Amino acid sequence: MPPEIQEVVVLGFTDAIGVMLAGARENAVSILTQWALMQGGQSHARVVSCQDALPTAQAALINATAAHALDYDDFAFSNHPSAVLVPTILAVADARPASGATMARAYAVGYEVWADLFLREKDLYYDKGWHPTAILGTVGAAAAAAVVQGLSATQTRHALALAASSAGGIFENFGTMAKPYHGGRAASAGVTAAAMAACGLEASATALEGRHGLLRAFSPLGNVDLLSPIHRGDNWHISARRLNIKKYPVVGAAQRSIDAVLELNQRTRIDPTQVEKMVALISERHAAVMPYHLPQNALEAKFSLEFAIASALRHNAVGFNELQDAVVLDPAMQALMRCITLETTSAFEPDWRDAAPFDQVTLHLRDGTKVSTSQVRRATGHADTPLPAADVHAKFMGCVRHAKVDTAAGERLYQSLQQLVSLSGAVDIRLPVIN
Amino acid sequence: MPPEIQEVVVLGFTDAIGVMLAGARENAVSILTQWALMQGGQSHARVVSCQDALPTAQAALINATAAHALDYDDFAFSNHPSAVLVPTILAVADARPASGATMARAYAVGYEVWADLFLREKDLYYDKGWHPTAILGTVGAAAAAAVVQGLSATQTRHALALAASSAGGIFENFGTMAKPYHGGRAASAGVTAAAMAACGLEASATALEGRHGLLRAFSPLGNVDLLSPIHRGDNWHISARRLNIKKYPVVGAAQRSIDAVLELNQRTRIDPTQVEKMVALISERHAAVMPYHLPQNALEAKFSLEFAIASALRHNAVGFNELQDAVVLDPAMQALMRCITLETTSAFEPDWRDAAPFDQVTLHLRDGTKVSTSQVRRATGHADTPLPAADVHAKFMGCVRHAKVDTAAGERLYQSLQQLVSLSGAVDIRLPVIN
Repeated sequence: MPPEIQEVVVLGFTDAIGVMLAGARENAVSILTQWALMQGGQSHARVVSCQDALPTAQAALINATAAHALDYDDFAFSNHPSAVLVPTILAVADARPASGATMARAYAVGYEVWADLFLREKDLYYDKGWHPTAILGTVGAAAAAAVVQGLSATQTRHALALAASSAGGIFENFGTMAKPYHGGRAASAGVTAAAMAACGLEASATALEGRHGLLRAFSPLGNVDLLSPIHRGDNWHISARRLNIKKYPVVGAAQRSIDAVLELNQRTRIDPTQVEKMVALISERHAAVMPYHLPQNALEAKFSLEFAIASALRHNAVGFNELQDAVVLDPAMQALMRCITLETTSAFEPDWRDAAPFDQVTLHLRDGTKVSTSQVRRATGHADTPLPAADVHAKFMGCVRHAKVDTAAGERLYQSLQQLVSLSGAVDIRLPVIN
Repeated sequence: MPPEIQEVVVLGFTDAIGVMLAGARENAVSILTQWALMQGGQSHARVVSCQDALPTAQAALINATAAHALDYDDFAFSNHPSAVLVPTILAVADARPASGATMARAYAVGYEVWADLFLREKDLYYDKGWHPTAILGTVGAAAAAAVVQGLSATQTRHALALAASSAGGIFENFGTMAKPYHGGRAASAGVTAAAMAACGLEASATALEGRHGLLRAFSPLGNVDLLSPIHRGDNWHISARRLNIKKYPVVGAAQRSIDAVLELNQRTRIDPTQVEKMVALISERHAAVMPYHLPQNALEAKFSLEFAIASALRHNAVGFNELQDAVVLDPAMQALMRCITLETTSAFEPDWRDAAPFDQVTLHLRDGTKVSTSQVRRATGHADTPLPAADVHAKFMGCVRHAKVDTAAGERLYQSLQQLVSLSGAVDIRLPVIN
């Protein structure tokens, strides 16, 4: 595996396991853990949310739901690959030992299959009502599971075809516990498809690209490329479409504005009480996913541009420490959020249609002066402006602290993930239990 | 429950359990049973294919796959309701005792929800690549499971919304083991959605009819009725769109031609060796689902109009006895099949778009005479020309014999199903184990 791809894989494992720890106590995770314990079954794979090991599909379900629960996990080509792939690989590698190199290869293969399918579609899956992570992620997870499980080419083909018949997930369920569950279901269905194919269950050789196959069935308007050959050899999607890492544990649409304000703080620290009005420039689509203009709790604050900007200005940070009901309800914060106005634009970046060409905040001070942040086109953590290694580590350790995991254990876990490719197996990844 | 609805429910239970016994040894069922035993879990519900009881979702998966494995199960509004609903209800009622009356109500509710969703769509799900039984069946099964489990209205809403995000199944997988697996997956996903909702997992209140919900996402062209209120009270779909029962264990498209030839046999028995040529009139769509013009084994014969007609003429029957490789390969049968020609028409019945206005077979004899069967518009077993009770019983006992179940046990099982509404619970349905 080329070093630059290995680097992406290590980043994906590190980010996913960090946010999985941080998300382990969320309601959806506790509920699914309770459900899984009621079903019982073989103790094949570890989960982040309880001491008992569980059947592989249940472990993948719970860990992937945890990894997606805070919406803090990485994204690429409009999907959330690591939150689905890493728990899938961990679960199968717990049940059937596989080396770190095999786990890394499984990630790369799952990523390639997923990206290949995604890039064939011209229209937005969201516009038809689909959550692409839930749909294509099922096939990507099946591909990754097939590698860890050592399936033959024929079995792998059946696994992908069974995954095609297991794929689904409705955009209408966004904003509920079903959103992280979609990630969990994709992982679990992928694990199941590979396990059933290993037992001999068969499906169509053309389930993905056929006339009545997955790509055409889910295609919003039928503008889907069924003919281009798949990439082979040195032309990897994972190199061209690298991971984007979220630096702040809030909605992706707020990340650029936070960067803008934090950078302004470095240039000139403004006293928040001197601010009369702030205007935030943002795309219409991004404004639509941040409906909470005056949030009243931490959950709403995750989807509030006003909170993000106010927290960056007042606390010089937007992290787990700030995402607390008390911070949100602090009268000074509420006052600051009230003086923010959104200015939306329908102009967009050619290669990121949701986003404006840049985001920017302009502050009007009581003394009549006007200060503008710089125009931010790429958030820190975007594939083009990657997070420095120190920040990746800092995010991971922030997740460890949020999960109340012992810091030394968190450090050891982080170090082992950096050595992923030379690990003897999943057993070397010491997953703490959070409950 | 009005008596005419109760009658449909009893018919659905009887038909589904009969064909489930007959299908229990098919490959897909054995493989899924092996897979489930490898997962382990609570012994909550019985399966037809092994002694051990299994977790409810696995039991529903295996029993529903068995019920759909031979393509001999009932159908209505282009779906296969009983093969999905009955195993779902049995599994949940095994784990959480519910009276026969509750099980019957669960069937009726599942049927109503399913039919309501189906009838809102103007176009053919198949044309976009969807298998409607796999998709809407998941929601129907969740509704049925919710009734047996005694969920509250709010929990039921969450169960249906979780089912909406679990629905899927690709038409391209027809003709493989994944076809019956679709039925199994619908049942299993429905059971799971209800169980997770019972544990507290939440999803959107508008997951079915919302702008980004199930109905619009799966709609081939967006011609879907989101506004009509759901039926309530005395205006039941289950009365207006009753079950169709297959009399013969072959593809539905062949049923009318078989009726035609068997009826001709009663009028005038023709010596097959005197037949020079036969012309079978059928719709283009039906011809397309019967591609085997000279089948070489029993599996191909199930999808061969030539086999169906030849068997009806030569053996005066098309049943399990005839669906044997030796019968298919019999030189006299092969000769008879060779002299059959299909004549297709694009004319169709207004309320059954796949079918020609009627099917008919014309025989040209060596002595120059020409004999035509009557024009059959409704197969025996169609909702408009229902199977007489004696034939329902005969089909059930044929399945019992095919499964090599003891005849007396089969008779007792049949009798208990006729009493469904007054049973104390699923325990009164003595499911034999076939392996």
